[in-house]
Amino acid sequence: MRVIGSDRVIYAFSPKNEPVDWVDLNEEFWMELRDCYSGQIKTEKDLRPNIDTSIMDAATGPVGIRGVRHGDVIAVTIHEIELAPQGVMVTAPGLGPLGEFIREPNTKIIPVRQGLAYFSDQIQLPLTPMVGVLGVAPAEGEIHCVVPGKHGGNLDTKDITAGNKVYFPVFVDGANLAAGDLHACMGDGELSGTGIEIAGRIRLEVCKVPGLYLHGPVVETETAFMVLASAETFSQAAQEAISFGVELLQRSLSLDFPDAYRLLSATSDLRVSQIVNPLLTVRVAIPKKILPALI
Amino acid sequence: MRVIGSDRVIYAFSPKNEPVDWVDLNEEFWMELRDCYSGQIKTEKDLRPNIDTSIMDAATGPVGIRGVRHGDVIAVTIHEIELAPQGVMVTAPGLGPLGEFIREPNTKIIPVRQGLAYFSDQIQLPLTPMVGVLGVAPAEGEIHCVVPGKHGGNLDTKDITAGNKVYFPVFVDGANLAAGDLHACMGDGELSGTGIEIAGRIRLEVCKVPGLYLHGPVVETETAFMVLASAETFSQAAQEAISFGVELLQRSLSLDFPDAYRLLSATSDLRVSQIVNPLLTVRVAIPKKILPALI
Repeated sequence: MRVIGSDRVIYAFSPKNEPVDWVDLNEEFWMELRDCYSGQIKTEKDLRPNIDTSIMDAATGPVGIRGVRHGDVIAVTIHEIELAPQGVMVTAPGLGPLGEFIREPNTKIIPVRQGLAYFSDQIQLPLTPMVGVLGVAPAEGEIHCVVPGKHGGNLDTKDITAGNKVYFPVFVDGANLAAGDLHACMGDGELSGTGIEIAGRIRLEVCKVPGLYLHGPVVETETAFMVLASAETFSQAAQEAISFGVELLQRSLSLDFPDAYRLLSATSDLRVSQIVNPLLTVRVAIPKKILPALI
Repeated sequence: MRVIGSDRVIYAFSPKNEPVDWVDLNEEFWMELRDCYSGQIKTEKDLRPNIDTSIMDAATGPVGIRGVRHGDVIAVTIHEIELAPQGVMVTAPGLGPLGEFIREPNTKIIPVRQGLAYFSDQIQLPLTPMVGVLGVAPAEGEIHCVVPGKHGGNLDTKDITAGNKVYFPVFVDGANLAAGDLHACMGDGELSGTGIEIAGRIRLEVCKVPGLYLHGPVVETETAFMVLASAETFSQAAQEAISFGVELLQRSLSLDFPDAYRLLSATSDLRVSQIVNPLLTVRVAIPKKILPALI
């Protein structure tokens, strides 16, 4: 199976990035991912303010997908996530919504083994591995890998995990997929500014989805389709995700606007993905019992 | 069993409201609840802009709880929710985050029977009954029943449902509990501005929780403790809920601030309760696997 190594990374999603490798549609492949610090925090002596931030938030790739064209929609299936044996959670003044209450930087190394993150001697957490950064090249410009958007990027959405699919609109031929920023555990919001940051690798497969029009990323879980939106404010992001959710219900169920809006309100959850990136990300989860398919 | 009828209502939570009845600690009782329109919308000809808004958002009560004093904390268990046979969802220009796209008012009557809401001939929704308004008298002032806050009120949180408990700080002797605004179905956010609004009754029981200090409402579900906060902006509400979540972890697990903050981030979800009331409400859900008890 093809392996895309983490020695070839980007720091920004851009149509100018050349693919470091190519895969076929419906071909499984591995991508090796650095942690978000590019491995600079190895011990509890390595503090967040002392690292080289220019090599933070690297994404492996991009990988070109043969047979994919600008204007297509692709679905990226995450078959498997393998984690390194050690993760890290840092705190530092200014980091996260309570950053003002942190007096000095502090690093916690968190061993990961046998399905658990060893937060402390007393506290072990079941792993909830997820991919923080996953995206395609945008139509234009350079979007730093720390920023989420319609192209994907730093969505930090815990449903971007093994067994689920992420749908993306494609803006350049080949799509140019890149990924990074694994987390061993993270709750909705990424409330201290980080998850349990960790390196590892992911096994992916990309297929094309003819006949589907998307404004931005959609995550498919076992039970729901989740429309993602990222914006500077919560209300902008929420309005965008709600609008597209209503549009999906109108299209798929042939409903008028008031009924689609009401149906969304009665059945679907507006959820927080993350509140700590340069744009925040929300998702509207529409149960598959209401919306069985996107097309 | 004592029944508190829906003929006795308040439109604002206030320390000046006299109890309409008294119950004992650990005594089960029923409260009958009007729908949020006080029953004014009975057919699809009854439009939201034509009703008397002065009698909207009534809460039944208040009920005094014998043996409860200012400074106590109470836990209100919701044992059962019974729904009327018919709910309603209205849309109208300006209602909800997409209200600008609605041209004219429209009322949908939704029959409710045998565990389902009959949204249309094609679409039936499993019921997710919940109590929109539940609260105690605040320390001072008058807080309209449409507003959420530290006293509870219009929290519109779908976990305020049968089988769960809601903890409140008590600001006046007797607590003076009031409730209203049942929903047959609602997703997180209450995205069109309403759930499936419906009348009905709820069976409650109140107990005292000695030794617990709370800033505001906490909901206990089978799997989590959820810290609620309401504010004018999402970020204010989020910061408040996160702060109190961190405080709970520090207290209960004897953690320092950075570790409690990180642990919350790795394990707990910031969720949206509602975005359509005068203040919006969020909750931080801390899994019981991490926080087995509040004290």
